[in-house]
Amino acid sequence: MNKIQLEKGLLLIVSAPSGAGKTTICKEILKILPHLRFSVSCTTRPPREGEQNGKDYHFISEDEFRNRIAKGEFIEWAENYGYLYGTLKKEIKKFEDKTLDILLDIDPLGAKNLKKNYPDGVFVFILPPSIAILKERLKGRGSEKKDMIKIRLKKAIEEINENKWYDYVIFNDNITAAASVMKAIYIAEKSKRERLKNKINNLFNMPEVK
Amino acid sequence: MNKIQLEKGLLLIVSAPSGAGKTTICKEILKILPHLRFSVSCTTRPPREGEQNGKDYHFISEDEFRNRIAKGEFIEWAENYGYLYGTLKKEIKKFEDKTLDILLDIDPLGAKNLKKNYPDGVFVFILPPSIAILKERLKGRGSEKKDMIKIRLKKAIEEINENKWYDYVIFNDNITAAASVMKAIYIAEKSKRERLKNKINNLFNMPEVK
Repeated sequence: MNKIQLEKGLLLIVSAPSGAGKTTICKEILKILPHLRFSVSCTTRPPREGEQNGKDYHFISEDEFRNRIAKGEFIEWAENYGYLYGTLKKEIKKFEDKTLDILLDIDPLGAKNLKKNYPDGVFVFILPPSIAILKERLKGRGSEKKDMIKIRLKKAIEEINENKWYDYVIFNDNITAAASVMKAIYIAEKSKRERLKNKINNLFNMPEVK
Repeated sequence: MNKIQLEKGLLLIVSAPSGAGKTTICKEILKILPHLRFSVSCTTRPPREGEQNGKDYHFISEDEFRNRIAKGEFIEWAENYGYLYGTLKKEIKKFEDKTLDILLDIDPLGAKNLKKNYPDGVFVFILPPSIAILKERLKGRGSEKKDMIKIRLKKAIEEINENKWYDYVIFNDNITAAASVMKAIYIAEKSKRERLKNKINNLFNMPEVK
């Protein structure tokens, strides 16, 4: 290998059941890891209070979403609670081209779809400290109705089961601690020999023998 | 699985070529990760200034070392610069019985032997930032003669090549930064889903399906 290859960017995928605090942790991790770029997903669900179009999500109609599926624009998409969620290929590509590291906030179903194309992505599952605390957190969400809480809890327990195929698990006892574990995972992954081999071979002039 | 299984302790193995600053980093990491227990190796080489028997190494005679090899007391051993180095099985066992995490400072040859018995150990290779700096550091060691430096440099370059089969690589630009990467690796490894599955299954009552 004569040409120096740039290190590939890292794909950090974060999933969690409803009420595990995934969105808050993602925001915290972006604060402490400014190198990470956030991949903005598309969704057909209406924006919640405070959510900004193009920053939190690309809010699009179901027609547009289906149209983009048909055109093959998504690297992954999945349905959740009757709404569609998906990651655009071009959203990933714009960061990949600059070998930037990307943070993706994706539900387990979408994450599983993504893993087919990105087996070397880093898949992190956020867990609530216990089922009791998960229940409390779901109740605490003012925006949800009682029936919705029941549905979400059932779904959350199903989703928790998906942790099986993830690389890492973080218990979200508190946001700061959980975000610092995420930071550690990021640093460790950047130190994986497999990711550094071209840099090492270049520094010490050792051809990689396959 | 009805019984709760304790998490297994983690084995963190650190190797480096001569002059990469491995011993200093190990001391630093033990300061910032007081949960880690240091595995004291046996060696036939004479103690350097300031080294304490039973703390830095168990300094033993070659006769005793060979005798212990014959008795099968070592989990790994290897020769380096004409001296023997090895890890006693009982040194590891005393920590394993308490499910404690262990830090081992072992040369690549010994580490390779250890990997056969501990494939799930975490193998970290410390690299100097460049060959030029490695050369300088070897020269800087007052205790070494010129011929010895040449031999060590040649050996170091051979040893660097061994990074291939390690899990992680840390560039030792400065001790504090290198130790903090090691800490991140430790935290990340403790968050690996594979290591936490019994805890998760116990918390959420999900039987592990093999």
